[in-house]
Amino acid sequence: MKTVDPNFEKRVRASFARQTLMSTIGALMTRVSPGEVVIELAFREDLTQQHGFVHAGIITAIVDSACGYAALSLMPPDSGVLTVEYKANFISPAKGARFVATGRVVKPGRTLTVCSGDVVAINDGNEKAIATMLATMMRLPGGGDLQS
Amino acid sequence: MKTVDPNFEKRVRASFARQTLMSTIGALMTRVSPGEVVIELAFREDLTQQHGFVHAGIITAIVDSACGYAALSLMPPDSGVLTVEYKANFISPAKGARFVATGRVVKPGRTLTVCSGDVVAINDGNEKAIATMLATMMRLPGGGDLQS
Amino acid sequence: MKTVDPNFEKRVRASFARQTLMSTIGALMTRVSPGEVVIELAFREDLTQQHGFVHAGIITAIVDSACGYAALSLMPPDSGVLTVEYKANFISPAKGARFVATGRVVKPGRTLTVCSGDVVAINDGNEKAIATMLATMMRLPGGGDLQS
Amino acid sequence: MKTVDPNFEKRVRASFARQTLMSTIGALMTRVSPGEVVIELAFREDLTQQHGFVHAGIITAIVDSACGYAALSLMPPDSGVLTVEYKANFISPAKGARFVATGRVVKPGRTLTVCSGDVVAINDGNEKAIATMLATMMRLPGGGDLQS
Repeated sequence: MKTVDPNFEKRVRASFARQTLMSTIGALMTRVSPGEVVIELAFREDLTQQHGFVHAGIITAIVDSACGYAALSLMPPDSGVLTVEYKANFISPAKGARFVATGRVVKPGRTLTVCSGDVVAINDGNEKAIATMLATMMRLPGGGDLQS
Repeated sequence: MKTVDPNFEKRVRASFARQTLMSTIGALMTRVSPGEVVIELAFREDLTQQHGFVHAGIITAIVDSACGYAALSLMPPDSGVLTVEYKANFISPAKGARFVATGRVVKPGRTLTVCSGDVVAINDGNEKAIATMLATMMRLPGGGDLQS
Repeated sequence: MKTVDPNFEKRVRASFARQTLMSTIGALMTRVSPGEVVIELAFREDLTQQHGFVHAGIITAIVDSACGYAALSLMPPDSGVLTVEYKANFISPAKGARFVATGRVVKPGRTLTVCSGDVVAINDGNEKAIATMLATMMRLPGGGDLQS
Repeated sequence: MKTVDPNFEKRVRASFARQTLMSTIGALMTRVSPGEVVIELAFREDLTQQHGFVHAGIITAIVDSACGYAALSLMPPDSGVLTVEYKANFISPAKGARFVATGRVVKPGRTLTVCSGDVVAINDGNEKAIATMLATMMRLPGGGDLQS
């Protein structure tokens, strides 16, 4: 995929740095390329659901951010991005030492961008798919100003 | 809705208490009735996205838990519950002093239960709808033992 | 809900009349009010899946159209409407003599409108819920001209 | 992907042949492999929405069937399959001479199978992606007998 902004990575990383939730949970943005972003999270006992696995909402948070920033990476410099909606399937329990969420642009658009995302759990070097997402992102011209 | 288990509230609250994420973010279960559960969250600056609103993943986490426990409230005593999938629409930015997530059973089932959820933001006594969810929950006979 | 266009019903019915699929399958628009539209379908053996029930795609078609026209009913006169995405849960098999799909606007917007929909099967005067939908519709300013 | 049933193709094609909707709209099953099924549809003017494109419900019908049969291809011989839920994004208008829907198993399971699907429009030999789906399918042990 091609981006119109050579500074896309700096712009994406600056916005990610403002997501306080990501530092609260210890998530790191480990890769930014045009139309594809990777966010990683280490297992933490304070982020779990009742069976001791990472809560679906946290898995969703990292793959949502990965999808949103994949979309933003292809937008013009003055753009903000907002999640319109997403759907996620949880295909295996989120157990593992580390979780890697990848967001990819499926169809870029002037107003709406469709993305897909996947999350894998990593344990002793083995990868296991745990979640998959389909999401719609919206461009906010002028950056962070929300019309609502 | 009717539940087969007179101890449903105790059972639901005990499971919620094991969701460490909920105490990490300060979420409280404020109401449990058969087929309907309410979870509340106060705004916190360490849970936000890049525009200063609560991150979609956190809004999703509280309404997912509300839906899951609404489903569990109608299940037999030895049941566990797992989120199969959900879809959420974010209809207004999550700004407000407090967020109230309500999960309701749409269709209970022996294996699968369909739920809907809504989240409102509360500010100076005014309510504003910010998100809506449609979710599929799965019963795990025998409690917390996951077959995977 | 309030619409800006007193001629909303005429406009909605004229657009519905152009959906050739609806006449192909025998679907009728039985009610149009601001933000809510009802479409009905009689059972037909040539619209079924492998178990003899109406195919999920046809159930989806009528509730998608009901949601889209609920959205259109609230838009200015020169608007077109397009389905961005939807999610549907099938909660009981589509067996019955007649199917009634209701689409409702959850949140109207300048560009995007969020709708929910439900389908019930009717048999000997009894109603049974068979599907529920959550959908995102997009306004096309200038009517039917698609920017793609 | 591997299937336990060497007769999977015959079984899948026999079930598809019972979907009367597919012959009503002229859809053909053009490929069946373990975990992946392709269904094709020629444009017809009696299947359109208000702008003259194929109705989203029909596009959904072919990709839903492709996903369902991809799931069934991996199930034991005595299984039936039912759509639990799906979500579809419509990324370009369904204009074209022909539409090709591919359903793939993302995660097979004893009870639930997660699938993804894509639809492309074909015009003068050019392919254009028009829709993408994420779906949950359920195995019905004993074939077509529905427990509801």
